[in-house]
This record gives sequence, structure tokens and C-alpha cells, in this order.
Amino acid sequence: MSLLVVGSLALDTIETPFGKAKDALGGSAVYISTAASYFTAPVKLVGVVGGDFPQSAIKFLEDRSIDVEGLQIISDGKTFRWSGKYHYDLNMRDTLFTHLNVFEKFDPKIPVAYRRCKYVCLGNIDPILQRKVLDQIEKPKLVVGDTMNFWIEGKHDELMKTLRRIDVLIINDSEARLLTQEPNLIRAAKKVIGMGPKILIIKKGEHGAVLVTENTIFSAPAYPMENIYDPTGAGDTFAGGFIGWLAKTDDLSDENLKKAVIYGSAMASFCVEKFSVDGLRELTYLKVQDRYRSFRDLSRFED
Amino acid sequence: MSLLVVGSLALDTIETPFGKAKDALGGSAVYISTAASYFTAPVKLVGVVGGDFPQSAIKFLEDRSIDVEGLQIISDGKTFRWSGKYHYDLNMRDTLFTHLNVFEKFDPKIPVAYRRCKYVCLGNIDPILQRKVLDQIEKPKLVVGDTMNFWIEGKHDELMKTLRRIDVLIINDSEARLLTQEPNLIRAAKKVIGMGPKILIIKKGEHGAVLVTENTIFSAPAYPMENIYDPTGAGDTFAGGFIGWLAKTDDLSDENLKKAVIYGSAMASFCVEKFSVDGLRELTYLKVQDRYRSFRDLSRFED
Repeated sequence: MSLLVVGSLALDTIETPFGKAKDALGGSAVYISTAASYFTAPVKLVGVVGGDFPQSAIKFLEDRSIDVEGLQIISDGKTFRWSGKYHYDLNMRDTLFTHLNVFEKFDPKIPVAYRRCKYVCLGNIDPILQRKVLDQIEKPKLVVGDTMNFWIEGKHDELMKTLRRIDVLIINDSEARLLTQEPNLIRAAKKVIGMGPKILIIKKGEHGAVLVTENTIFSAPAYPMENIYDPTGAGDTFAGGFIGWLAKTDDLSDENLKKAVIYGSAMASFCVEKFSVDGLRELTYLKVQDRYRSFRDLSRFED
Repeated sequence: MSLLVVGSLALDTIETPFGKAKDALGGSAVYISTAASYFTAPVKLVGVVGGDFPQSAIKFLEDRSIDVEGLQIISDGKTFRWSGKYHYDLNMRDTLFTHLNVFEKFDPKIPVAYRRCKYVCLGNIDPILQRKVLDQIEKPKLVVGDTMNFWIEGKHDELMKTLRRIDVLIINDSEARLLTQEPNLIRAAKKVIGMGPKILIIKKGEHGAVLVTENTIFSAPAYPMENIYDPTGAGDTFAGGFIGWLAKTDDLSDENLKKAVIYGSAMASFCVEKFSVDGLRELTYLKVQDRYRSFRDLSRFED
């Protein structure tokens, strides 16, 4: 089924204990659509970049069968840039700078050809813009949304309005606690479900992810990684694998949602093995399947 | 198979956001042997208490078919007392006081009748005492040991000697990182295995547990608890369920170790539902089995 992805495209300058990358391809829409492209094609992308956005990056997206008709290119503007430095244990990072550039005035315009998309993934952008996207979609079957501390604290009321229109919210554990003011994650999850989303996924980094629906709780393990080179984009890649699998299978049963969580986890595990999107450049569907099976072996025990 | 448990017996004064308990039954040996008693009997207990240790506590242990021949009672001494206060989110606690009392000079004497025990669980005590216990055991089949920050930092060399005689080390994630000076948990696990234990279990509280052996990595989910009343003893209860299952089945295959981790997790989930050992007072083997199956449902997904 057709999949629309809206979010940021960025040039990231990243430092981890294992190396550096300058102006590397990044942004939520890039990670989401790249991960999803391993499951469904063409992914329809909406975002904005400046005239400095490299042609090679656009070619990369096109080679992944990502439809860039909805990519606005502001030729006299500069692309969104973010820079971060990860600490030794990779769970903490400092933002060195954030230059919104053309992203500051991003006004998502959904091309007519995209408006009947059944699956919609809203990257972490202003909740007002997330609703503006939804206003342009005819009748989505599933809306997946991401958000972050910045919006939870800074645009709380707008976010609450957006949540009522999101089917699946994907956030991390600290965001779930912040959003609900509830330290217990299971209770926090139930509170989030009371805010609108029917389905909540809590990402817990090295501890895996938890899926909570009205009828089920599912705990997905984290892939045991000895070498994490760059955690940037892992959450977006998770979302891309998750919605990519759902768009491919068009099955929203709890059992299939669980599989989608594992595919999201598998894609995220590839993402962090290399810098930027490099971990997602040369995958095959076979490799993705192999990793899916590794997740099964990791968590299965006898009755 | 026969199981020996050595550790502390304590009277705990605990405050959580949900209530208080004064001089409640606690201590590593109590939690371990109580949890194990649901799988194997009689558990042989070695520890020390003062003359103030309540008769009702001894009766409780005996009613659980725990053999207290190895319990030293120093009638003119006082029992080990610990007091802690948990924060709102229950992941943090302050120790209000620690009165070692008779535990300060604990010198574990293993009764002759215990010396052929095949399964040995060493609660979190001085690594020198842990070795002193092992010196008195004829030929154990499996030695499970616990330790903590205090010994990792304060008696590092002694602990390293003890680790060479332990088969299964059970510690939490921060202890694993501290012991190995390695932030990545999987690498930390492999380093620990290089220190002696063939098997490592890393407890991660609300994120479950990870089992690492030479040939397998297994990720156990945490039971989704909405109401945690008192986390005290959860780790010891985990250890008790784990070794209790192994002593019952006498099967050290990776597959059975995984099951043991789930039984440990199940017992710990009962423990935290009530204060002190109250969550372990009135269980049945059927309830334990039910919870085991809940863990399976929580983590299972289709191929």
C-alpha cells in the first residue's frame, strides 16, 4: 500500500568515540523513507532542502525508489544542519549546533498524487505541521507519528490536538514519562492511549522496545550490538521499518504489529552499525530476514 | 538436586511511595531460599541472626521447607538491619541506615550434612566469605554468585579470585559496566566471561534480563507491572527462582538456562507486588506456571 513520509532532511555533523562525519545525509524523513524502502515502493517523501543539498543524496533516495516529487528545493536557501557529539557510552549526546535554515519555514505541501496515500508517517516536526499534513490527506488508513521533548514541553496543547489524529505514536521512554507525568512505563502507556493513539511504541534504545495496544503488550528485545558506531537516526529508522512492513502487508492485527516492531528493530540495528545512512545503503531483503530471525532466536524460550 | 543458599538475613525498614514497613523480614538468603523453595526442597540455608530475630520468621522459613540447621543464632546479638527509602519512580533509593550487627562477624560454617550440595547460591556477601563457603563444599555442580558495587570497588582483587570459582554471575547492568569498565553491555558480558564465570546474567530492572553464555545470548522481557510496591529483594528473588529451577531439573543446557531466567523473572515479579517477602508467601506452583506463560506471550512473535 502507498506510504507517505513527511519530516526533515538534514546534513549532520557527528562525532562519536569511533569517528567523525561532516555534512552527512540525515534527517527524520531520510531515515524513515530509506528504511521503509526495503519493504514497499515507491515511498513518497515530503520535505524541504536548500540549494546546497547534494545531488548525490537525491540520487541515493531515487535509487532506493523513493519518490521525491514532494521534495521542495529552495535554491537560494541552505539545508537544515545539525551537529552532535556522543559520549563514550553512546547513550548521551550533546547538540553542538542546530541551524534550521530552510526547515524553519517548512510548510508541507502534499502533491496531489500523494493525497490518497493509505499509510502516513509523520517524522518529528512541529505538531501544527503534522496536522497540516493530515488535513491534506484524503483518508489515511494508518497514521504513525513521532514527537520529542521539545514539543511535549513547548507546544503541549498543539501536540495534544495532533495526538487525537495519530493512530500509532512512537516515542522513547523518557518522552513517554514526560508526556504523561507518570514514572511507571506501563501506566504511562495506558495514559498515552487515552490521549488518542490506539497504539503506542516505546523505544528503549539498548533495552529494546515495547508495543502497547488495547489488547496486548509486546516486549521486543534489542539486538546485542558490540559495535555501535553512530546512534543517529536509529529511532527514525525503527519507524521506517515498522511502517514499511505494515504498508507492505496491509495487516493491522496485533500479531502483525508485533512483526512490524521486530522489522523496525532489525532496521535500526543495521542503521547504528555505520555512520549516517551508510548502514542502510547496501542491505538486501535477505539480510533483513536473517536479522529478523536473529531477533526470534534472541527472545524465544521453550514452553 | 540439593541446593545450598548462603547470604544475609535481615530486618528491613522500608519506605516507598506506597507505604512503610518496619523490621520486615529481608536479606539475600531469605529472598533466595524462599523463591527457590517453590521449585526444590529442602533448601539448605546458612546465615546468621541475633536473638531478636522473630520466631515467626523462622517458622515462615521452616513452613517453606527451608532447612535452618545452618542458621547461626547469636542470642546476645542483634540481627542485621537495613533501612531504605525509594523515590517516586522506584528506580532510585536512598539507604537511610545499615546496621551490620551480628552480620559484621559472619563466618559461614557449612553443616556436614550440607557439604555435598550440588547447587550453591552465594548471596551478595564479602567475596572472601564466598570463597570460604566454597572451600567447605565437596564438589558443587553449579555455583551461582551475586556481588555489588561495594565489593567491585572495595575488594576488587578478592572478588576477581572468587569470580574464578563462580559458574554463574548475576549482577545488574551498572555493576557489569563497573566491573569491566566497558559501557557496551554485550562487550561487558564477554569480559566478565573472561574473568571466570561461564554464564552471566545481567539484571536490568524494568527492562528485563539478559543471559550470556559462550554460545548464546538470550533476552528476557520484564513483566509489565503497573503496581510495584517494593523493589527490595527482587534481584535475590530472581536468583532464587533461577537456581531453584536448575536444582529441580538438573539440566544445564542453554535451553534450560533460558527457562531458568524466565522462572527467576517470574518470581521477581511476584516479589515486588507486595512489601518484604509478602509477595512470595502465598504462591502456588500453578500461579508460577501461569506467570511463566505470561512471559512467553509477552515476547513471542510469529516467524
